[in-house]
Amino acid sequence: MKSICIIGRGNVASHLQTWLSEAGYEVSETNPHTFEGFKPNADLCIVAVTDSAIDEVARKADAMLENSKAIIVHNSGTVPLAELGELSHHAGVLYPMQTFTKGRKLQYNHIPVFVEGDSPETEKALMDLAADMTDNARTADSNLRAHVHLGAVFACNYLNYMLMLAEKSIAPLGLSTYGQLIEETVAKALEIGPEKAQTGPARRGDVKTLWAHMNLLQGHPHTSRVYRLLSQHILNLYKD
Amino acid sequence: MKSICIIGRGNVASHLQTWLSEAGYEVSETNPHTFEGFKPNADLCIVAVTDSAIDEVARKADAMLENSKAIIVHNSGTVPLAELGELSHHAGVLYPMQTFTKGRKLQYNHIPVFVEGDSPETEKALMDLAADMTDNARTADSNLRAHVHLGAVFACNYLNYMLMLAEKSIAPLGLSTYGQLIEETVAKALEIGPEKAQTGPARRGDVKTLWAHMNLLQGHPHTSRVYRLLSQHILNLYKD
Repeated sequence: MKSICIIGRGNVASHLQTWLSEAGYEVSETNPHTFEGFKPNADLCIVAVTDSAIDEVARKADAMLENSKAIIVHNSGTVPLAELGELSHHAGVLYPMQTFTKGRKLQYNHIPVFVEGDSPETEKALMDLAADMTDNARTADSNLRAHVHLGAVFACNYLNYMLMLAEKSIAPLGLSTYGQLIEETVAKALEIGPEKAQTGPARRGDVKTLWAHMNLLQGHPHTSRVYRLLSQHILNLYKD
Repeated sequence: MKSICIIGRGNVASHLQTWLSEAGYEVSETNPHTFEGFKPNADLCIVAVTDSAIDEVARKADAMLENSKAIIVHNSGTVPLAELGELSHHAGVLYPMQTFTKGRKLQYNHIPVFVEGDSPETEKALMDLAADMTDNARTADSNLRAHVHLGAVFACNYLNYMLMLAEKSIAPLGLSTYGQLIEETVAKALEIGPEKAQTGPARRGDVKTLWAHMNLLQGHPHTSRVYRLLSQHILNLYKD
């Protein structure tokens, strides 16, 4: 597998371009709307578009690919392999679990990559590729991958959203004030596990502080609902 | 200020004991129920108990303190200084913003410490002490401190809770799989700000993935409610 055609122009496509080039592959990028730049003889075609567009773009690529041994993959955490099931080419999944932002440098060689193929041969070819991308490649069927992706939404997207709410609560100081607190929180959770690591007023059952915070959040209905729901869950979880 | 008496036996009391000893102070610990070990001649008395017990313990300490120049402080992020207002001794607040767990080693010298005093002299004495504890000491009135503490609940307690939910979503793999993702999420949010850093299905308006995740969460009503509420907020925040 030498020549790779990436269809997409988003964050993931942009990082895969750099990542695979650095790993020694010949990579071309294709506009997902016009298919300008498409390589009909590519060995691997990566459909790196938003989940709801995967089906349409993959079918178009399938029709244009002339290399009969080529594999078509998508990068989604959630879309099952079966959604690529009726292609005339082999199909698979290459899901890199990281938060990608254009222009932000990343150390690619430890990022977990989850691989699935529609046959043992396809899966082996994709695992060989993934092993060139990272030391953290593994196979995962569509069900396991969906659960991993769901976990990533909490560990990444919702974690980041908590930082956004923190910033909004304390506009006069700025998020950097919380830098050391955030780093210790993460280090502790990874070391002793988040269930043991939980602290704070809800964990202690300190209802007075919970009320004081709800009071500060008057006029912030969204943040207030999040605060109430999370504190209720933590209270329930740790009550004797 | 040389001799410090810490009343309390929790996580904060235990770390303050180590922290202040390392900073060169003479520190004694007192049982908050029996007052065993109390030092009537201490220069500073730290009431390091749960918020709802501060008032009672502070009054008891006030009655037993023989040093008329002594200061009584609490460590709470939320309890206003005014709650210590009717003591016969000077009163203040020393709020270290960190998540403390007994037995876990911490680098104390950069932890933010927020100081408030009931007079300029009290505040100066406490700021001098805080400057011996950290290079990150600053004054903050009760209102600012309460907002800072509210932010810390999101940046620490609720951030940790998101990791707990991530772990529950993906029990077969374990949280360590997410280590690099979590670290990049935090680094990115601190560098470019969480609003720009937000990614994920809700940020992209990818409703199909949101539904797929809600589907995986059937049978997990709590996690499902959290998922729905947060995704709705993020969808609203980023819609065109």
